[in-house]
Amino acid sequence: MRAINLAEKLSQFSEHWSPKIVGQFNGHDLMVVKVQGEFVWHSHADTDDLFLVLKGEVDIEMRNRTVTLKEGEMFVVPKGAEHRPVARNEAHLMLIEPAGTPNTGNHDTAAVKEVL
Amino acid sequence: MRAINLAEKLSQFSEHWSPKIVGQFNGHDLMVVKVQGEFVWHSHADTDDLFLVLKGEVDIEMRNRTVTLKEGEMFVVPKGAEHRPVARNEAHLMLIEPAGTPNTGNHDTAAVKEVL
Repeated sequence: MRAINLAEKLSQFSEHWSPKIVGQFNGHDLMVVKVQGEFVWHSHADTDDLFLVLKGEVDIEMRNRTVTLKEGEMFVVPKGAEHRPVARNEAHLMLIEPAGTPNTGNHDTAAVKEVL
Repeated sequence: MRAINLAEKLSQFSEHWSPKIVGQFNGHDLMVVKVQGEFVWHSHADTDDLFLVLKGEVDIEMRNRTVTLKEGEMFVVPKGAEHRPVARNEAHLMLIEPAGTPNTGNHDTAAVKEVL
């Protein structure tokens, strides 16, 4: 029952593409992540995928368009839509996904989501 | 399928305690709201209540404690917990609630949530 300071959580790690769980909401994990470079193409069959940019800029590439997100901008990739996040420089994001969702859409290749 | 710019959405209205829907995620409304002063004590029997401070500062009063949230801080009021948001000065928040959740916990007294 404490305030979750997102910048303070982000200061506790440096690796990219490794979401950290900072809270829980209605069966979802609230996460922060640092990203840089290109992630893998993937989709989530059972959930939308929420991205909120806290710092920097990220492109959400989809098969038929790319949405560029700047600081203070949010985007929801619809359930099932293939996408690939790409960040030219390091960016910091908040993510929300149902608890247990693999970040790559595949449990075999997913990062382990540490709780911060 | 566009970026949702939270500051730009917040610039489109001025009234307090009137959440505006800016997106959808897994059956939830993504909302922004401007608050100032004291809201009513209420609870949500069926959902957690997520607050993310985008600007300013807000106290989330609960019956046994108060959590103060500053810009960049988030808090989740657990399902069923009575709470009252209080903001000495105007603050801007992002909220996430299941679509159709009354902001006062009661459909008779709830604000109508306009889509921006």
